[in-house]
Amino acid sequence: MPGDGRIARGDATRRLVLRRAADVASVDGLAGLSLGRLAAELELSKSGVFALFGSKEELQLATIEAALAIFRSHVVTPALDVPPGLPRLRAVCEKWLAYSEQRVFPGGCFFFNVGAEFDARPGRVHDAVKAASGSFASFLRETAADAVDLRHLDADPEVLAFELHALGRAANADAVLNGSTRPYHLARCALLSRLGAVQSS
Amino acid sequence: MPGDGRIARGDATRRLVLRRAADVASVDGLAGLSLGRLAAELELSKSGVFALFGSKEELQLATIEAALAIFRSHVVTPALDVPPGLPRLRAVCEKWLAYSEQRVFPGGCFFFNVGAEFDARPGRVHDAVKAASGSFASFLRETAADAVDLRHLDADPEVLAFELHALGRAANADAVLNGSTRPYHLARCALLSRLGAVQSS
Repeated sequence: MPGDGRIARGDATRRLVLRRAADVASVDGLAGLSLGRLAAELELSKSGVFALFGSKEELQLATIEAALAIFRSHVVTPALDVPPGLPRLRAVCEKWLAYSEQRVFPGGCFFFNVGAEFDARPGRVHDAVKAASGSFASFLRETAADAVDLRHLDADPEVLAFELHALGRAANADAVLNGSTRPYHLARCALLSRLGAVQSS
Repeated sequence: MPGDGRIARGDATRRLVLRRAADVASVDGLAGLSLGRLAAELELSKSGVFALFGSKEELQLATIEAALAIFRSHVVTPALDVPPGLPRLRAVCEKWLAYSEQRVFPGGCFFFNVGAEFDARPGRVHDAVKAASGSFASFLRETAADAVDLRHLDADPEVLAFELHALGRAANADAVLNGSTRPYHLARCALLSRLGAVQSS
């Protein structure tokens, strides 16, 4: 059994590789990942990196998990610090837009990119991307439902959550493709008027 | 100079290859295209297919152009048959959703997929995808602006067009990833209430 120092070094290398893998995948896709290229870019031994992940598919699955943890720390966790109902719903939308706009991942939202990449390719990677996207969609829906239950909003929470998520993703898509910040402005205008229109009087 | 028959056969082969390429790219991405694989799948001579396109990048650019013509024939052309203003705006949204839902391309909207794939990868393919997406975004914005000018709607046409396009793309993304038709229902509900809310009285 390796000593604690060796385990700790392995964990640190794993984190380093996965952070770089998530950044690369946000630009070039999960299919564009290569253990050899990651090892070379990070100046790590190729055999050591291979030993940590075993296969490209394992690397892709571990990258999705690592990216989800980063996404949650930027979007979900800070929103949970805000009181439930309309304030939390506003916060999660604003945090999502900031996460995309600040390029937490250089290619924009990681899950937007790998969702489009693996949406129609059956397999374990597809299922992991679907589960990750589904967990955020559920969080958004529950946050909207809380706002309705608390009588902050008068709306169908499923439709409202779909609309809000749609605005964020369209802003991300247009901003990255066109190299422009205007889509974030449009999304914020739409968000404000959408939430204003369903606010309980 | 080749005779007319030879030119006609070349054009027909080119159309066949490009239709197949657009279908493949909607699932596996433009990076997943291969002249050799397309020739094999279509039982064409590899050298003949290579002679038609020359390079993978030329094939990718020609595929975008072919996909845009298919997209236009399903979404833009039928909308232009409808009177301008609110009727045309409704028609283009409905045609867009039908184009995605009927899987004109097997992986869902071609431009959604290749937009996410090439949004952060500079080069000629990125520029072609950006131009194609931009031309539809402009059409949608002008259609919304006509509806405002004709006093059918009272809204900011740029924000409204952004919202409507966002709903379609989110429905496409969720439906393909989750293998569900419910996102189209959610998008239609949102669309109806959005256009209802901005309708001039």
